Parts: sequence; C-alpha cells; structure tokens
Amino acid sequence: MTNPRMRAFRDRIGGLAFGGDYNPEQWDPSVWREDVRLMREAGVNMVSLGVFAWASLEPEPGKYEFGWLDEVMDLLHENGISVNLATPTAAPPVWLTRMHPEVFPIMADGEPFGFGSRLHYDPSSPIYREYAARITTKLAERYSHHPALAMWHISNEYGPTAYNEAASVNFRRWLKRKYGDIATLNEAWTTRFWGQVYTDWDQIEVPSIPRSWMNPSRILDFKRFTSDALMECFIAERDIVRSFRDDIPVMTNFMRFYRNADYWRWAPEEDAVALDIYPDPADPDSHVSAAFQFDLFRSLKGGQPWMLMEQAASAVSQWKLNVVKEPGRMRLGSLQALSRGADSVMFFQWRASRGGQERFHSAMLPHSGPTSRTFREIVDLGREVKLLAPVAGTTMQAEIAVLFDWNGWWGLEETHGLPRNDFSYVDTVMRHYTPLWRSHYPVDVVSPHSDLSPYKVLVIPNAYLIDDAGVAAVTEFARRGGTVVMSFFSGVVDDCNRVRPNGYPGAFRALIGAKIDEYWPARPGERFTVAFADGRTASASWWREDIHLEGGTALATYADGLLRGRAAVVANSFGSGRVVYFATLLEEAAFDAVLLDEVRAAGVTDRFRGVPSHIECTARRDGRNEYVFLLNHGADAPATVPLDGRGTDLLTGEEVAGEVRLDPLGAAVVRVPL
Amino acid sequence: MTNPRMRAFRDRIGGLAFGGDYNPEQWDPSVWREDVRLMREAGVNMVSLGVFAWASLEPEPGKYEFGWLDEVMDLLHENGISVNLATPTAAPPVWLTRMHPEVFPIMADGEPFGFGSRLHYDPSSPIYREYAARITTKLAERYSHHPALAMWHISNEYGPTAYNEAASVNFRRWLKRKYGDIATLNEAWTTRFWGQVYTDWDQIEVPSIPRSWMNPSRILDFKRFTSDALMECFIAERDIVRSFRDDIPVMTNFMRFYRNADYWRWAPEEDAVALDIYPDPADPDSHVSAAFQFDLFRSLKGGQPWMLMEQAASAVSQWKLNVVKEPGRMRLGSLQALSRGADSVMFFQWRASRGGQERFHSAMLPHSGPTSRTFREIVDLGREVKLLAPVAGTTMQAEIAVLFDWNGWWGLEETHGLPRNDFSYVDTVMRHYTPLWRSHYPVDVVSPHSDLSPYKVLVIPNAYLIDDAGVAAVTEFARRGGTVVMSFFSGVVDDCNRVRPNGYPGAFRALIGAKIDEYWPARPGERFTVAFADGRTASASWWREDIHLEGGTALATYADGLLRGRAAVVANSFGSGRVVYFATLLEEAAFDAVLLDEVRAAGVTDRFRGVPSHIECTARRDGRNEYVFLLNHGADAPATVPLDGRGTDLLTGEEVAGEVRLDPLGAAVVRVPL
Amino acid sequence: MTNPRMRAFRDRIGGLAFGGDYNPEQWDPSVWREDVRLMREAGVNMVSLGVFAWASLEPEPGKYEFGWLDEVMDLLHENGISVNLATPTAAPPVWLTRMHPEVFPIMADGEPFGFGSRLHYDPSSPIYREYAARITTKLAERYSHHPALAMWHISNEYGPTAYNEAASVNFRRWLKRKYGDIATLNEAWTTRFWGQVYTDWDQIEVPSIPRSWMNPSRILDFKRFTSDALMECFIAERDIVRSFRDDIPVMTNFMRFYRNADYWRWAPEEDAVALDIYPDPADPDSHVSAAFQFDLFRSLKGGQPWMLMEQAASAVSQWKLNVVKEPGRMRLGSLQALSRGADSVMFFQWRASRGGQERFHSAMLPHSGPTSRTFREIVDLGREVKLLAPVAGTTMQAEIAVLFDWNGWWGLEETHGLPRNDFSYVDTVMRHYTPLWRSHYPVDVVSPHSDLSPYKVLVIPNAYLIDDAGVAAVTEFARRGGTVVMSFFSGVVDDCNRVRPNGYPGAFRALIGAKIDEYWPARPGERFTVAFADGRTASASWWREDIHLEGGTALATYADGLLRGRAAVVANSFGSGRVVYFATLLEEAAFDAVLLDEVRAAGVTDRFRGVPSHIECTARRDGRNEYVFLLNHGADAPATVPLDGRGTDLLTGEEVAGEVRLDPLGAAVVRVPL
Repeated sequence: MTNPRMRAFRDRIGGLAFGGDYNPEQWDPSVWREDVRLMREAGVNMVSLGVFAWASLEPEPGKYEFGWLDEVMDLLHENGISVNLATPTAAPPVWLTRMHPEVFPIMADGEPFGFGSRLHYDPSSPIYREYAARITTKLAERYSHHPALAMWHISNEYGPTAYNEAASVNFRRWLKRKYGDIATLNEAWTTRFWGQVYTDWDQIEVPSIPRSWMNPSRILDFKRFTSDALMECFIAERDIVRSFRDDIPVMTNFMRFYRNADYWRWAPEEDAVALDIYPDPADPDSHVSAAFQFDLFRSLKGGQPWMLMEQAASAVSQWKLNVVKEPGRMRLGSLQALSRGADSVMFFQWRASRGGQERFHSAMLPHSGPTSRTFREIVDLGREVKLLAPVAGTTMQAEIAVLFDWNGWWGLEETHGLPRNDFSYVDTVMRHYTPLWRSHYPVDVVSPHSDLSPYKVLVIPNAYLIDDAGVAAVTEFARRGGTVVMSFFSGVVDDCNRVRPNGYPGAFRALIGAKIDEYWPARPGERFTVAFADGRTASASWWREDIHLEGGTALATYADGLLRGRAAVVANSFGSGRVVYFATLLEEAAFDAVLLDEVRAAGVTDRFRGVPSHIECTARRDGRNEYVFLLNHGADAPATVPLDGRGTDLLTGEEVAGEVRLDPLGAAVVRVPL
Repeated sequence: MTNPRMRAFRDRIGGLAFGGDYNPEQWDPSVWREDVRLMREAGVNMVSLGVFAWASLEPEPGKYEFGWLDEVMDLLHENGISVNLATPTAAPPVWLTRMHPEVFPIMADGEPFGFGSRLHYDPSSPIYREYAARITTKLAERYSHHPALAMWHISNEYGPTAYNEAASVNFRRWLKRKYGDIATLNEAWTTRFWGQVYTDWDQIEVPSIPRSWMNPSRILDFKRFTSDALMECFIAERDIVRSFRDDIPVMTNFMRFYRNADYWRWAPEEDAVALDIYPDPADPDSHVSAAFQFDLFRSLKGGQPWMLMEQAASAVSQWKLNVVKEPGRMRLGSLQALSRGADSVMFFQWRASRGGQERFHSAMLPHSGPTSRTFREIVDLGREVKLLAPVAGTTMQAEIAVLFDWNGWWGLEETHGLPRNDFSYVDTVMRHYTPLWRSHYPVDVVSPHSDLSPYKVLVIPNAYLIDDAGVAAVTEFARRGGTVVMSFFSGVVDDCNRVRPNGYPGAFRALIGAKIDEYWPARPGERFTVAFADGRTASASWWREDIHLEGGTALATYADGLLRGRAAVVANSFGSGRVVYFATLLEEAAFDAVLLDEVRAAGVTDRFRGVPSHIECTARRDGRNEYVFLLNHGADAPATVPLDGRGTDLLTGEEVAGEVRLDPLGAAVVRVPL
Repeated sequence: MTNPRMRAFRDRIGGLAFGGDYNPEQWDPSVWREDVRLMREAGVNMVSLGVFAWASLEPEPGKYEFGWLDEVMDLLHENGISVNLATPTAAPPVWLTRMHPEVFPIMADGEPFGFGSRLHYDPSSPIYREYAARITTKLAERYSHHPALAMWHISNEYGPTAYNEAASVNFRRWLKRKYGDIATLNEAWTTRFWGQVYTDWDQIEVPSIPRSWMNPSRILDFKRFTSDALMECFIAERDIVRSFRDDIPVMTNFMRFYRNADYWRWAPEEDAVALDIYPDPADPDSHVSAAFQFDLFRSLKGGQPWMLMEQAASAVSQWKLNVVKEPGRMRLGSLQALSRGADSVMFFQWRASRGGQERFHSAMLPHSGPTSRTFREIVDLGREVKLLAPVAGTTMQAEIAVLFDWNGWWGLEETHGLPRNDFSYVDTVMRHYTPLWRSHYPVDVVSPHSDLSPYKVLVIPNAYLIDDAGVAAVTEFARRGGTVVMSFFSGVVDDCNRVRPNGYPGAFRALIGAKIDEYWPARPGERFTVAFADGRTASASWWREDIHLEGGTALATYADGLLRGRAAVVANSFGSGRVVYFATLLEEAAFDAVLLDEVRAAGVTDRFRGVPSHIECTARRDGRNEYVFLLNHGADAPATVPLDGRGTDLLTGEEVAGEVRLDPLGAAVVRVPL
C-alpha cells in the first residue's frame, strides 16, 4: 500500500522532514549564507522553494532568470538540505494579467479579482493553463535531475472560485460529461420548479452573483465542478513534471476544513497529502480540531503517512486578532501531528518577511533573530524531530470511523432552503468527534465510498445529502454487524439534492426503524426535556423531528412539549448490526454518554481508559515496534500516565516502565517493542 | 358595489374557494391522477395553475407545447375542480434571457440579476413586455373558453426594482407625464440643493447604486414609478385576457407588508385583491399582524371580499429558521382570514416539490404523503371550508379607520436624512392597531384618499409625509365631528418630501392646536416621565418634541428633563371634532389607555367588551344573517365567550345560545339571524 | 509669522467672523431681503456663498448666469456682510456627468458613483479639472474685485477616493516622481513577496476592489497619492483666483478626524485652515475630542488663528440618530472653538432647506423661523462674538506636544496584517490627550516634521509607522533633554511599511532602552496585573510585549501570567532626556497617573491645578493682554474658579478679581492685562 515514491523520499530524507517555506528571492544573496548556516543549526533537512517565484523566474513573457535559483539549489544541496520545489503558478506575474485580464477570476459580485494578492486566476482559463504549463515545463526541464530535488510542490493552496465566461464553458463541458443529455440535467436539477428548464447546453452559465435564491442542484454541481477544475490544473502540472522524471513524489498543499475542494477526490492523484494548518492559539479547543484534521489527512490516502506542510512558528497575521503560540505550544502541536501519522514538520516560513501582507506572520527565524524565543524553540524541536526518525513510515489502527463528506457539507451549507439554514457541518462533526478524542479512541475518517470493513462503529453526523452508493455502504455495514450512530436530518436528499421519496429519511427509514413525518426545528431559545429509559433526563434544543417508530425502539422520549412521548433517540436492530439515531440535539453530556455507551457496547478497544482527557494518547506502529505518544495539553500541572510494558522514550533516551511522567505541556514518545 | 365578475365566480365555485398552487409540470402524468383523487378527498374546488410554466409552454421562442396543459385542464374539469389560470410571466425562460440579456433587471449594485431564480425581468423592458404579451395572448386564445377556467391569475408577486437603461427611459416618460416641464420637477425635487438642477429630461436616470445620500424626492418618485411600471405590466396582460373574454375575474397575488407596490393604486385595476401571506409561526404575535393585513386587504377594494391566495400548510423554507405550524394553527389562521372578509383559503402549493429552491416548503400534500399530519389537517379544513359556504360574499362594518399609506411609508423609511432614521412604519402601525385588535374593535384601513365618512375615529400613525388632499381630508374629518388620534412626526412634509412651511407640523398645526419648535429624538436608552392630569405617570422614550400649545391643551406633560412642563400629549377641539396628538412614544399600557379612552369617548360600539384579548371576535354579515367568528388563539386552555342571541355554529351544526365554548386553539362560526 | 492676507481680512471683518453657508439659489429673491434683515439682527458679518452653485451659475456648458449672484453679492455688501465666495466645484452639474461619465469616481466596488449626491468626481480626471478651472476662472474674473469679497472658499470638503483609469495614470505619475525607477518601487513595496514584481510603470494600477489582502505598501502610497491628487485640485483653483487678485485669503474647509487627506501637507498651501466640525451631542465626551481638533487646527499652521467654518446650530441629519444641541450647548461649543484659537464662528447653514438630503439639518434660521429657540440663541451668540472681537488674532502657548500623523494612522488602520487589526488611532490619541485636557494643560499637536524645540514633553501614541526624519527628530528631542512618553507598538516599520530590522522596535530600541522579542496581543477578555515599584498595582489588557531591558528600567512589571516579572512600563534615560514607554494598555487611572507624573516631573506649568476637570480653562494672548476662557461643561451646577489677578469679563463687561463664578453651561472670557 505504501507509495514507492514516498518510500524512496523517506529514505533520502532519513526519517521525518523538518523545515519550511523558503523565499530567498526576497533577500540579498548575502542573507542566503546566513540562512543556510542557521538552517543547519536548526536541523532543517528540507525546504519548500519558489512557491511565489513566477515573477522572479519569468520577469517578462518567455524571458527566464534561473541563475538565482540555480545558486540557491546548489547552496542547499551543498549543505545537505533537500528541496521540495514549487511550481510558482499560484501567483501569475503582473505582465500576464495585463496581457490577458481575462485570467482574473470574476468573483461572486461580478467584478474581477484584480492584481495585488495571490490566487488571482480562473482555473478554467485556457490562457492561465497555457502559461502555467510553460513555466512548469521550464522548471522541470532545468531541475528534474538536480541533486537537491526531493519532491515537487505543485502550485499552492488551490482555491479560487471563478465566475468567468471560461468557467461557464468549462462547466458546460463538465456537465455534458456528467449528464450526457440536457433532459437528464433538467431532471437532476428539477428545473421545472420556477420554470428554469434548459433546452441547450449553451444556456447554462456558472451561477454568478447570488441573487435571491439559486437552484440548489446547480449550486451543488458548481461546487463539484470548481473542485474538479482546480484539480485539472493540478493534474496538468503534475503530469508535466512526471514526464521529466517519474520517481519523485508530487503533491500540493491542502488546507484545513477547506470547503472549496473535495480532498477525497484529489487524494488519489497525490503521492502524499499535505496539510497547511493554522490553529488559532486563542481557541482553547484548537488542538482537538487539529487532531480531527490529522486523522482526516491520514485517512485521505488510506492510512499512509501524510505531510504537515505549513504551520506557524508562533502568531499568524491574517486574522483580526493574532495571538502568539505561548512557550511550548508550537512543539506540542508539532508532536501532535507526528502522533497522528505525519511524517514531516514544516513551517511557513523560514525567515520573516520585512514587508508585504504577511510581514507579521511569525517565522522559524523571526524579526528578532537567532536569539529570539521562537528560534530557540525551533532549534530544540529540530533536535527532537531527528530523534523521532524511527516513527517515519509507521501507521495507526482504528475501530471507529467518522463520516466526513464534502458533498454533504455543500448540501448543508451551500444550498439553502432547509428547515433551518444555520447548520455548521464542521461544528457538528466536531461535536461527534470530541467525546471520542477525549476518551483517547483512535478514529479514522471515511467518505461514503471508503472501505468500512475494518470498523466496529460508524459515526454519521448530519448526513443530509448522501449518494446511493453511500446509502448502500452504510446499510450494508449495519447489516453485517456494525454499529451505526447517526444524527438527525440525515439521509434526506439524493446526490442531486432532491428529497428522497417515500417519507423522511428516504435513505435510512428502514435502517433507523422509523419514519419522520416532519422536521421541527426549534424556536430560538426553545429547550426540551428528554427522558431515558432508566429515568435519567437531559435537555435538548435546536432541532426536533416528528418521528414515528417502525420497528425501532425509543432510547429516549420527549418528556414535554407537543411531541411528549415521541422518540427523541431511536435504537434499531438491523441485520446483525445496531443503529442509534439522534432525532434532536442533546446537551453535550447526554450526547457523549449515549455515543460512548454504543462504542463500548460495540467492543471497541479502550486502551487508555482512565487517563485524563487533556492527555492526548495515540500510538503509531510498524512490524516491530509501537510508538506511544503521550502529550500533556495542560499547562498548569504535570501528569503521570500508566503505560503497560516497558520501552524507551525517544525524546529523552530513557527507559520507561509502568508509567510516564509528563511536565506541563510535556510529551513522551515511548518505543515499545511488539 | 360588488364586482359582477366576482359574483359570478362565487356562484360557480359554490361559496368559498379552497385549494392551492398546482404545478403538474414538475411531475409525471401518472402522478396527476393521484393528485386529483387526493384533491377530491381534501375538498379542493380550485387550483392556481401554471404560475411558473412559461418554459414548459414555450420551450423555444415561438414553439408552443400546450398538450400537457390541455390534459391537466380537462382532468381537473372532469373532477369538478376549477382553474385559476396563470400567465407564466414571472419566470421568463432561459432562452429569452440568452437572446436578450437586457431583460435582466440591473440591481442596486449595478450588476444584472442573472438567471436561476425568478422575477428576473425589468418591468420597463419593451422586450420583456413584448414576449410576455405574446405568451399571454397564446394562453388566452387557447383557454379563455375552457370550461375549467374560473379566474385569471396574472403573473406572480409583482416586485422587481430595476435600474436598467430601459427603466431610465420609462422613468423619464413617467416624470414628464407627472411634471410636464423640467422646471416643475426641479422645484418638486429641490434640486438647487447640492446643485443637482436638471435642464433636460435626458439627464435624469433612475437612482442606481445608492452612494452617500441620494435626493429624497427623486427616491420617492422612483418608488412610485417602480410600483407603476409593475402595474403597467399587470394591466397589459389583464387587457389581453379581457379582450378574449370579459366575464372572468382577473387578479394578481399581492404580498404582505410589501413596500415596493402601492396596492391602493393597484386595487381598482383588479377584480379582487388577493393576498399571499406567510406569518412566522415563531412569532407569537404573527396573528395580530395577519389580522391587520386581512383588514387592509378587505379595505383595498372598499370592503369587498378578498382572496387568501397563498399560505403555507406548515413551515416555509425561505428564512434562516423555518418553524412548523403546530397542530391546529393552520386551521385557525385559515379561519381567521375568513373571519376578516376572505372568500378563499388557498395554499402554496398542492404537492411538495422534490427539488428546487423550495423543496422544504410545506405543501397541502407533503413529502410524507397522505398519511401525514399536515394532509389530515388539510382534509379536515376542506370539510369545514365547505360548511362555511354561507359566509361567501358577506361583508363587515367598522367605526374606526387606521391610515396606511405607501407614500408615507416610503417617506419614513426610504429617503433618509430624518431626525432619526430607524423608523419602522409597520411597527408603528401595529403599535396603533394592536390595542384595537385586543379590544375586538372592527377596524378598516384607509388611504389618505379614502372616504372617511363612515368612521367615528381616525387613527394616524407617524404620517410624516401626507399629500394636500390627505391633509384636507383629515382636517375635514375632524371639523365634521370625527376624532383624530395622531402620533408624532406627522404632517411634516408635502408629497414631494419638502418640509411644509410655517412651523412644524406644517400640515396639522391648526388641527392639533400646537406648534413644534424642534423634533428632539431621544438618546439611546433615554427615558422620560410623563404626568397625566389625573396624577398618573407613565414612562416615554425614543422621541420628544419641543411643542408649544396654540389652543390645544396638554393631556399629559413631561415631569422631568429639559422639556419638563411641556406637553407630551395634546388634545384639541377642532370644528365639531377632537384631535389627540402624541408628541412622544408612551409606554405601551399608557398609550393603549389613551387611545382606547378616545375610542370609547367617540361612542364606538364595544360589542365584545370583557372577552379576553386572545379570543379574536369578528362578524361578517349579509342582509339576513350575521356570522360571528370566535377564535381562541390560546393553546393552553378552553374559553367561554358570551354571545347575545341564538344561532347555529356552522362548524358543528349545533345550536348556540348565550355563550360559546371554545377548545384550546378552537373556533366557532355562529350564524345569527338578523 | 502671521499671514498678511489674514491680517488684512481680520481688519476688514473687524475681529471675529460670524455667519454661515448661504445658499440663496434655493430661495425666491423675496426671501433674500428677509435673510439679510435677519442676518443683521443676528450680527452676521460674513457668509460662505455659492458652495454648490455650479449648476445655477453654468446651467449649460459655457452658458453662464451670474445675474442672481451679482444681486446677492450687492445686497450683502449693501448690508455690510462680507462674502467668502466659493468655487462650486464640489458639485459638478449633471450635464458634465452626462457628457463625460468618466468624471464619476469609480468606487472600491468597481462601480461608478453616479449622480445624485455631491463630490461625484475623480480628482485625477483631466476633464473634471478642465471644467473646474473654467468655472473658477469665470467666477474670479467677475468677482475678484467685488467689494463684498473677503475670502475665497475653494470647493468643499475635499474627499473622494477614485479607482478610475485616470486615477491609475495619475498614480503612476506620482509614483514615478517619488521613486524614479521601478526597481526602487519594487524594493519599497517588497513586491518579491507573493510574486508581485513590476517591470513597467504601466503595470501599476490603483488598488481597486479590495480582495483578500492587498500589498500594504501599495495601499499606503495610494492613500498618500489620493490626498495629493485632491490637493492638486485645490492648488489649481487657488492659483487661478490668485492670478486675478493676490491679497484675498484662500482656503478650503477641512473635516474632523478625516483620514483621506493629510492636512499637514495641505496646511502650508492655505492662507488659513478651516474646520467643519459636527460633534455628536449624544456623545458626552464630544467636547474633549472637539478640543483636540481645535488644538490640531491651531497647530496645523504653527499656532496661527484658524477658522471654525461649519458647525450645526442644533441637530444634524446625516446619522441614524440626530440629537439636538440642548439649550446653551451651541453657544458653549462656539466659545470653546474661540478659546482654542479660532477667529470665526460659522455654521452650515444660514436658512434650513425645505427639501433635499439635509432638509432636517438644523440651521441658524430653522424651519420654525425667527421665534425659534435656535434663532434666539444665534442672535445672543452673535452679540457675544462681537464682544469678543479683541481676541481675534491672539495666540496660545503650550509646553506639551502630542504627535498626530496621517501616515501613522494609515499604517495602523488601512494596511492590515498587524498582530491585531482593530487599532483605532483616534481612540488611542484621545486616550493620551484626555488626561492632559482634564488637567487643563495647553497642548499643541505636532507632526513628525514639526519643530519640537518649544516643548518639554512629547507624547507619542502608538506610532507604528514613522519615517526616518521623524525618528531622528524624536531621538534628538530626548537627547536634548525632552521627556518622551510613548505607547506600545511604536517605531515598528519604516515609511514604506517595512519592518525595521535588528529587533523591535527598530526605530526606538536605543531610545526606550529595551528590545521587544515579540508582540503579544491579548486574547479577548484577557486581563493582567501590573505592579509598580511603590507597590501599587493596576490592571492592563489588550496588548503585551515580550520585552527585554537593555539599559532601561521597569517602572512597572507584570505580576501574573507568562510574562510575570517582565517590564510593562519602561523608563529610560537618554541623552539629557527621559523616555517612558508603555508596553501594555494600562487601565485609565493608572495610565493617566504615569503620564501626568511625567508631565509634572518635566516641569510643565500647571496653571489651573485644582480646577475641576469639567471646567475647561485656556488662555489666548497678544502682546498686551491675556484672555482667559473659562467654560463650564457641567449642566447641573454652577462653579467658582479661582483666577489670579484682576480683569474684565468681556461677555458681561464686569470686573473680575480673585475668582470667577460660572453658571451651569456658563462661560467667562476674562481679559487680564499683562
């Protein structure tokens, strides 16, 4: 299963990659020497190079200046630092936009993006694609066989949504491929509603300025198309660099909870998935959502190690308020990524820029220089990352899967007209994930099309939109003995955003053993009491369903209100499995209790039972060893964690037996022979 | 006074119309059979057909497909269901917008509306009007004499405001007609202010993107023009269908508290006014504002029955939060419309759509089908509506009139530059209407140009802008013995939005017997104490006036603050009448007390005195009977209402004498012979 | 130092100017007679005439109508009223915008401003400038030698920011002049960041629609350019009127806290600076920020008297809520302007307009006419202003200077990407100014390029961006013995918005005797405790700095949190001077105490020590007399203020000795011979 290019990369790098984005074009060559010296001090073994260098490499159309890059590549190589070389296509030069203003993406308000930021291209633009291919070809010609080259970094943070005429042309092409004939599209989009029937492909445009209320199926397809149009750009550049040399891994950097690109579709096209993540240090739960991201990224390529490609050494500068990472937090967050399957710790960026938009974005080497707190923490971290080389390439196991689906996300948040229109898919997913994280359960993230056979429990948060294959997979998972925990407003529409017929929830009526007569979103501030069979009660809010049991049983019923006596949580036996369905939003403690009861009842291994929830506990393993990561997210007190068996803490080199003591914000990585 | 086309319609329909919008083009013909069967089960006797069917009727320019509509018309007719046939011009087909993108309305931000919603036309566009006329003609040619045809439904919810070049051309034409010469316009608009003088009609454009601050007279005329431009579209289509057959009533559906169209101007052009109303079930007072709408719609055509054309069977889907109508609420709201003069109970729509923007808008026949709570309530209601056939055509009497004027609304809310710019005309009107509703007084709604002779009391909420004819009518009403209750900031500007000269309030200084030196809006949170002659005090807020009595007397004075001792409420004898003027915003209880005191003092009949305010009490009558509607808006307890005389509850068929008992959310409609 | 044109003007006017904007073109000539009669009653000696009269003077291109203006000028002259004659270029006529729509400024959203307000021109438009020059020339030809002419009022409230193509052309010209070659610009703007390198001037456009995040150096230069482009318009018109007659003062009216024009650059081009100020009567501190404005305007031309050009007689109408000036407030605010160096009391406008956007903006003569409260207060004020004629031309002295810099303002608020992006420069400046105001210290306002030699104390609020000359001046001020009080996040970037190298704060590391490792903005709601050397503690919030002393000493240290023990306030000896640096935001009382301690320690004269802070105390003087202004801002109680020496209260003519008694909202202006 391991990607051979990545295996070779790991061998070359000698374990885990450590480094950051390097933008030498911002600095005088005299600074480069100091950079490399300090990189060596910090243990940097790879940099991402040239991400925004198009204007420096091709200052005029067809006129190239590679001299400076030659020099930097050589210098890095001489100092034993590998290069993740970027195609610079995220920042088209100003001359291209002056020659061809039509490459600017037209934004949702009908106006072009203009020059002065980045990502100022319509991914469907043939002109953009032509120029991007040309510079990519030139770079690949020149550096494919440079000894510093370890990896290709295609463009940067693919993202623009464009409403250009070229986008409409490409959208039509995409729709034709999907639907074949216009009648099928009309049926899929329910265009008879409000008289929107198309009789010719050329009548279809991208859904530009959002007025009043747009057809929800068209919006949905446009989201899918936008993700695919961006992916076409990636694939085109990837294929160019591959055509020069096939044994170097190729990736692009993805973003955290990024709604514009369906990474499940992208992942198979990458040699490794790579994550840029900027958790807000002012958010006390940011490490939990980071953990989910890490699990998602590990899962995107079926458990293979992933790359932490960008993070901040301390504060960022893009928000209204940019809080620093307090001492020790950057190290802990880096180890957390490794603890959940990352094979790299990389930063944006190496040296803080003097000017430009991100002049206050922290860097490995900040404005206050090598004596700064931050650089000292970087040096310490570099040393530790080197000690952790043995974990490179190791993997993880989980018995619980959480469904995370871009189509479902778009359905809930992009297409409006729902019983309530303030769903937050991410919040809902985190609501389901958090109790599992607090109880130290390993979790994989799955798409509706993932292989579900490894799991005992499948958690499905608010899967409003799910396609037929997903419905079949979930159903089959339960039939074969799995436990499905599903929350309300799931299985409602098909993948065209059409309500599934024959009563809510059309997809899962048999599965949950109940029919829903009507969705009853709660009034603002409205709360209900829910009573469990054992007499406990809990409060609920935000949502109710007028549900009628059809074989299922009530785990809990409403104790008040117009739905008094009706089921609030349904349990159903289905095939050899079990299904629990939440028809309301329970208060946190009650929700967590039901979910964790089901997990335990399903026989999921509970290895770190009793460890306080702020101690994050995970394990990576290979054929010979297990590597137990113990991370104390508490800043106020040390902690002692019991540990079966005997091993070596890779960070200290000391023997560990029976228990591990962790300082405040402290960590241990214990190698335990299997 | 009764419209003969509507009298014929009532005869045809056999009493009250019951049904909803029917969009068969969204469904397979096999579904049509089921539809008609279930319509019969529900007692449906009329449907609104084809509202958005243009693309289905004319899929290509000049190519018509009437076969499906023929079939549906025949099927409905065979089943005894009449048709309110719509011209489909609210949703121009995509081909028209591709051939002529200039039909798209340009929005206030300078960008076209685009395709994908509805109402995507500039009402001033000659091209739109030409194509709309063509499809209307074709429909009228084909169906004018179809036996199912009972009514014409012209277009749908007229509304678009457009800033197109064609709109400017039409605006100039409208202005020329109004003002005759450019000097008059300059005078009316006070264009010398900020140097905006026009010397040629062609210099005038619609006031597009709102920048800084636009001339308030120009804005005001643009609002009037927009209403008229839409009305021109209505009249054009109406005249076409009339040219084929003159005895069928023609209407269009209006909206609730809709600021873009002056329904006082429209109503005479309609055979009946029709209301689409979607009260928010999450708003506990939504039935009070619904009552006001119903009174307005009854008043729009001088007391003739009106049509409830659209309402929801349960939840809607256009808001952020769409709460269901709880059991019994839909029935009660429907009876409420009948209780205030409606002759129909219609819904949007018959069958819930599977896809499209409104897939979660409730329907008579919801996604959960014929066994659903909602469909069962519809069937019950259909039965009751049939029992209420005798009330069709009956009318109501009132001794109190409340002024409601679109020009005044625009003046307060559209033109800025006021002492405070957070007036809500609707809230103010409801503030005045609510105590009357709570006391069960019948109320008519009047325009400044209505006949005021039937009334004893005229209530005038914040009539900032009122034209000379209105001023004369109000003045004459008081002179002849009427009681006028008027609230602050009334009579300030003329119908060009120019301050009336000679001291505030220029229109009503003699009427109220006081001169206002200056308007003193209150600071945020500021409260004042007001003392009445009898020693009671009350708090006031939001607004004060530095008022000087000129013949009037103080009903209440400020007890504190810089205006201590100055009048807060003024009473004045004027001619044979009486005027009460509120110069501040009294707290609710005090305001209500003053208003109700005046009503009683004016000798208004107080028939339902003592009945709790949550029991809505009204009466319709014809020459022989009175129909007393008693509606219990309380969901928690039954109620008993005393009733003089003896009658029959049409809903139960039972005899009633002395009192009527109502269940929670219960209703009675008692026929009492006169 | 006094401007000779202004000296002549003062002689002509006979002391202080009193009057307002006069717009006779809005009224029938019969009204003009009444106007002039009432002006005389009110003591008006000057009006600003014709500010928006372009359309009335040139109704068609090249066709002029000066007859009405001739008549008004003559009438005013006959009645002894001087004229401040306006060029009407703030309101181009509609015909100009129809002939040349390109004169409309394109706004930040990409759409043109359109017609219907004012200031609808792109200041870089050659066409606008050509037509503006033409009407200016015609006016100057005709009226330069009219006996009523006392002053030229060039255009009005210069302000528009435009994103037109003409603006881009002008911007390039401006940039070429500034940078000389494109490489220097690239270096200044750090364009290598995100690959924004320019290779040709023509590639540079104004930074139109703000997308994502624009280059902060480009934004900064665009702000400077916009101010200069507007100033070019002013200079062009000024030079035209000067070419006809050179002895008449020329000015334009500036605005309060106006971010779009760098008045330090404009002031030398004016004969006098003039302020339009509309403090919000609902803001209880509006007189303090007014005091700062007055000090700024006096300082803009090095202490010369300035002109209060526009204020409201009572309420304005441009806000959401427009509260009246309560009785006595307008007088007190007018005297306050005089107390801080104004030589005029002028209003917008003389007579309230009947229509137009500002129909509810109060006027000297309001809608309620000559008997109104407001007009009576105007008449009283006119009498008092005449009594105060002796103060005309007198000046003030201060020992404290507060730095106020448009470049620093733009740096903090316009260019984003800071550690936190909710800085309010104005709030910060007022935070520093308020304790000085409360203690009655005279304060001058300085730019980074002002002569600092007169001062003992220099207060520098959050000077994030300061140029090299400013850094040198501040440093030299301290070296020579001055006291510098500086607050956090100062001296961070150079005038290109590039972080100064060698550790924060690059500009002032030696000056403050400390190096800042990292800026630590506080989390929302986070508070810290700070301990002073003497044991007192105070709370701090919003901002911290990880600061390391390098010669400085800690006046206060953090008593808790991760920075416990680190300096929160630093004192440093530098040269012969002293520097105090606030590295956090102290609570108000503690901040004020530190600041006032430093002021006292620096030996600043504390003349009004002990007078309650709501009594504003200032003094103007000439060679022979001092004029002490005592203003009681308290509305509830009289006050007695001790006064050394003996003098005459100009307002009452009474002798004053030892103390002065002030009514609530009362005032005294005591002439004390020197």
